[in-house]
Amino acid sequence: VSESALIERIARTSARRPGTLIGIGDDAAVIETGGPVVVSHDMLVEDVHFRRATTGPRDLGAKALAVNLSDLAAMGAVPVAAVVGLGLPPGYAAGGDADALQEGIEETAAAHGLTVAGGDVSAAPVLVVGVTVIGRPVAGVAPVTRAGGRAGDLLVVTGALGASAAGLELLERPDLLPGLPARDALVAAHRRPEPRLAAGRALAAGGARAMMDVSDGLVIDAGRLAVASGLRATLSLDAVPVADGVAAVAAPRGVDAAALAATGGEDFELLAALPPGRLAEVRRRCDLPLTVVGELSEGEPGAELRDGAGARVDLERTGWEHRV
Amino acid sequence: VSESALIERIARTSARRPGTLIGIGDDAAVIETGGPVVVSHDMLVEDVHFRRATTGPRDLGAKALAVNLSDLAAMGAVPVAAVVGLGLPPGYAAGGDADALQEGIEETAAAHGLTVAGGDVSAAPVLVVGVTVIGRPVAGVAPVTRAGGRAGDLLVVTGALGASAAGLELLERPDLLPGLPARDALVAAHRRPEPRLAAGRALAAGGARAMMDVSDGLVIDAGRLAVASGLRATLSLDAVPVADGVAAVAAPRGVDAAALAATGGEDFELLAALPPGRLAEVRRRCDLPLTVVGELSEGEPGAELRDGAGARVDLERTGWEHRV
Repeated sequence: VSESALIERIARTSARRPGTLIGIGDDAAVIETGGPVVVSHDMLVEDVHFRRATTGPRDLGAKALAVNLSDLAAMGAVPVAAVVGLGLPPGYAAGGDADALQEGIEETAAAHGLTVAGGDVSAAPVLVVGVTVIGRPVAGVAPVTRAGGRAGDLLVVTGALGASAAGLELLERPDLLPGLPARDALVAAHRRPEPRLAAGRALAAGGARAMMDVSDGLVIDAGRLAVASGLRATLSLDAVPVADGVAAVAAPRGVDAAALAATGGEDFELLAALPPGRLAEVRRRCDLPLTVVGELSEGEPGAELRDGAGARVDLERTGWEHRV
Repeated sequence: VSESALIERIARTSARRPGTLIGIGDDAAVIETGGPVVVSHDMLVEDVHFRRATTGPRDLGAKALAVNLSDLAAMGAVPVAAVVGLGLPPGYAAGGDADALQEGIEETAAAHGLTVAGGDVSAAPVLVVGVTVIGRPVAGVAPVTRAGGRAGDLLVVTGALGASAAGLELLERPDLLPGLPARDALVAAHRRPEPRLAAGRALAAGGARAMMDVSDGLVIDAGRLAVASGLRATLSLDAVPVADGVAAVAAPRGVDAAALAATGGEDFELLAALPPGRLAEVRRRCDLPLTVVGELSEGEPGAELRDGAGARVDLERTGWEHRV
């Protein structure tokens, strides 16, 4: 009964935006995309992907949808709707946390013009948030996969890296660097990552041959793009764009800022393979800085990272890894 | 690492069927439905919706997708693709259970012509299966909601009811009625419910004004349809179609077979509101028996059940309830 009351509150607070013909409350939702649909699903599980101690329900809701929208961004697609599965631990709905979670989801939905069109609510031993987003390609621009890269393509990344990992470190060690000017921005990067939807469309329209979002760290994800494209990615550590404040957070652990940025994960920036001749035009179209971090070439499929002297950097020695 | 190995095995064993342009392995899937998309999501959580003791992994996979397809059936839609989120407890992937789960999902996908096009795999403290199905309306037939019923419409149900609840009773009390001829069929009804996709299309094309699937029991679900339509549903206990063998299972608990059938739940038959003049034609189109179990009328929105003498039956006294 409290589940159905919660569903009613979710239905009442979820605005129906263009493209959703039938929303919450029936056996299924009906969505109009005007063409093919681009679909992605992520399941976030408490103590696997997040801890309630460092991520409040509102931020979690916002982030759960944002992370999924990042996958649409990586295809160059436009979000239309989402359906959400919530597994709620005892007391979560009654205590107001579920409403805060819903507020966060709806904030992200409003910011990006999509509708929460349905879903499911269940009891569960820990908090589980499963989100499926449904989008559409931009007219005339095919969805960009990971597999289309060609030898000679530049590897470019949007924005700057390392902020999420540094923000998590600050959340877990509240006494660290209290006066750091970038503190709020780093924490926000971890709690409220921004899906790079406009940049994804600019890259897709501008000729990106392969694209993905950087969720597990640049080196791991570049390796995935390279393997999907059947090529070798060579990344330059010196070229990695490091977010403001990351160096200050990395230093006490004796970690190089660029190494943290290259491996930290959860930045949800976009990584794309771009023919060199398209770079200038895409930079004009894109709302974010684009940094060339490497290139694709023939060779054993996978990625490698090299320092300024051209020496291979062993990732095991960066002293930082992707964590909850 | 074992998660990515599992995802590779899932990708290898998931056939790509028509409508899926990009399947497992990229940031998102791309599905072509040729028009609006019908979307439903269900999250099944261990010890809330199923117990591993009574539902093996293969049956669970088959059922998780089937239950979701039942929602598409209730809209009169045709399935095209699904994305699946798996939360796996320790040891589940390594022990082969995750592969059996995937086999069950793929069996249901193959039986109904859809593609498992993507998803997510995560660790979790208990088994969680989240399924999102994507379908399309039949050309020229609008999706049927719960809200379109009108006063005077007949309430019809496909097939027979009570089998799933009786099957669960047999699973939980293995020494009960060992020689019951319907035993296997009842257990199968619980373990492997069949989504009524063809019947749903026949009902939609034949003029059903409102429709839903019977997941929580006929009386509860008829109440939902009636409330969505702003009408009163009056159901006749004597008219409820009772599956073979249900009476034998109900008797030792002192429960009336029709009462069990009207309240047992999880049958995943379809309940539709149909103008009386359309019944004969829909019966010709439909691959399942259609039974008139009641009607819609003006009155306080909700449902009531009456016995053969016209007396109201108090559901609290049936002695049976919807259980895991």
